[in-house]
Amino acid sequence: MSDLTLCECFARDGLQHETDFVPTAQKVALVDRFARAGFARVEATSYSNPQVVPQFADASDVLRALPRIDGVYYKATCANLRAVERALGDLEAGIGANEISLLVSASEAHSLRNLKQSRADQWKRIEAMAAAAQGRFRLIGTISVAFGCPFEGVIDEASVLADVERFASLGVRHVTLGDTIGVATQAGTQRLFGAMLRAFPDVEAIAHFHDTRGTGIVNYLAALEAGVRDFDVAFGGVGGHPAKVKYGGGVTGNVCTEDFVNVLETMGVATGIDLAAMMDASLVCESTLGRTLASRVARTGLNPMLARASTQTRVA
Amino acid sequence: MSDLTLCECFARDGLQHETDFVPTAQKVALVDRFARAGFARVEATSYSNPQVVPQFADASDVLRALPRIDGVYYKATCANLRAVERALGDLEAGIGANEISLLVSASEAHSLRNLKQSRADQWKRIEAMAAAAQGRFRLIGTISVAFGCPFEGVIDEASVLADVERFASLGVRHVTLGDTIGVATQAGTQRLFGAMLRAFPDVEAIAHFHDTRGTGIVNYLAALEAGVRDFDVAFGGVGGHPAKVKYGGGVTGNVCTEDFVNVLETMGVATGIDLAAMMDASLVCESTLGRTLASRVARTGLNPMLARASTQTRVA
Repeated sequence: MSDLTLCECFARDGLQHETDFVPTAQKVALVDRFARAGFARVEATSYSNPQVVPQFADASDVLRALPRIDGVYYKATCANLRAVERALGDLEAGIGANEISLLVSASEAHSLRNLKQSRADQWKRIEAMAAAAQGRFRLIGTISVAFGCPFEGVIDEASVLADVERFASLGVRHVTLGDTIGVATQAGTQRLFGAMLRAFPDVEAIAHFHDTRGTGIVNYLAALEAGVRDFDVAFGGVGGHPAKVKYGGGVTGNVCTEDFVNVLETMGVATGIDLAAMMDASLVCESTLGRTLASRVARTGLNPMLARASTQTRVA
Repeated sequence: MSDLTLCECFARDGLQHETDFVPTAQKVALVDRFARAGFARVEATSYSNPQVVPQFADASDVLRALPRIDGVYYKATCANLRAVERALGDLEAGIGANEISLLVSASEAHSLRNLKQSRADQWKRIEAMAAAAQGRFRLIGTISVAFGCPFEGVIDEASVLADVERFASLGVRHVTLGDTIGVATQAGTQRLFGAMLRAFPDVEAIAHFHDTRGTGIVNYLAALEAGVRDFDVAFGGVGGHPAKVKYGGGVTGNVCTEDFVNVLETMGVATGIDLAAMMDASLVCESTLGRTLASRVARTGLNPMLARASTQTRVA
């Protein structure tokens, strides 16, 4: 039983910026390890152009070899219609992912720089992708820089809500708001997610925040209080940062799985994660990348009082 | 103008566990740099036994050379009556600190292991220290492991409040609650500080939390919401951890100054800190220790929207 759903992003978002190729068998073992540890959603791979992102040249091979656990969503990232067609091909071959993602930027400037498309053109692409994928995969819409843009600054909240509505009109029932550059505040997080949950009660709200400035857990707990029950995390906080800023040797940006699970369980919020399996997976992730990652709990261990802490208090 | 008071702990708590001696002139320059950047309280040194903590063998030399800024409190840590006597001697020589600290553990087991005294014996020592220091220094009482003990687990909140009362009865008007091992929750932080602020309206509540498990800023913001207006921080998050756990090459544990100030200013809370001077000080602290420290803002820079963010919203 769990009070919320965590999506473990290490194997895709985490590996995205790693220059050393992680062997396919290792990727498969990682994704399966995450699912067995209790993550109900796992980013498995990306149907990227192998020439642009060689790390995921083995997308179909990973999915072919991956054992499946009932009820777990294995996500594949799709950047364009060609990616969706590959995902559909694998699905027909019986080896497909069961969840794919569609990405839009909240700001025009970020869309042009990050997606090389205007927002209008990107929405046209998303419409085509959603039409092709509809009914075959669970669709996850993601709105990046929803809490602030490095180029345009403050983002109009009404515009973000209009993007949520547009996803909903395409049949997308899960929409992620991203704090891509780590500038959200507790109040802003609660205001925007609160408005989204009120306006779109049939859309599941997902938080994907980057811990660029140490505010990831702060804002995830604010989102939790606002009613959000879906959070993206990555072991060791790897991945995520668009500017590939280096922290002590590693690209980071995502909220550390270990640290977020520790604080939730300490609060009495049931994550559904097997804590011993999580700490094992944490070690495996560090060993996969061959360096110390950003999780503090990985260094210090779980709260020693977790075993004693009441787990009776549950989020309603 | 500032909405709260930050105590910069790098030069004492931060250097406490550093084995390489930082030259006296460098320490003086650091403490003065912190005061000039806007920190209204700065930990300057410790009257430790030089044989036990050689880093602070130069306590009196630091204080002799240190320029003073009106209104700034320069704290010297005093472990026992002998330390208070040294502090008094320096005061009479015209070179003293204007603030000293008195430490008690919230749990018997932690007191015996960390202070080598029972709580009863430690309180007797504190009474003698407070009697000797009263009227000469501003006194800061500190209660460590107030939110959980590594040996005894949960701490009785009534016992912590009784300790606050005991400090108050000795004329101590500033009392720090420490989350020494990083196990506090938002709810526990608000409950204990809330009870303290209600029961002792004449006592200034100070938070000294360790970011052992990534919850430092989370709980500082919870304390702020509960009415706490005094927070201990350290550049790069150095110092603090009693078990000297290593994070990527450095002892850490304190809440990173850079990261906490960034989130406060982003929220519109005025810290009174000159942000450019803070970023300069951050670089100097890293160069002093010769390694990359734990602050994320030191790597990524301040929130780019800080200049645009409204600073109209103030904490009441």
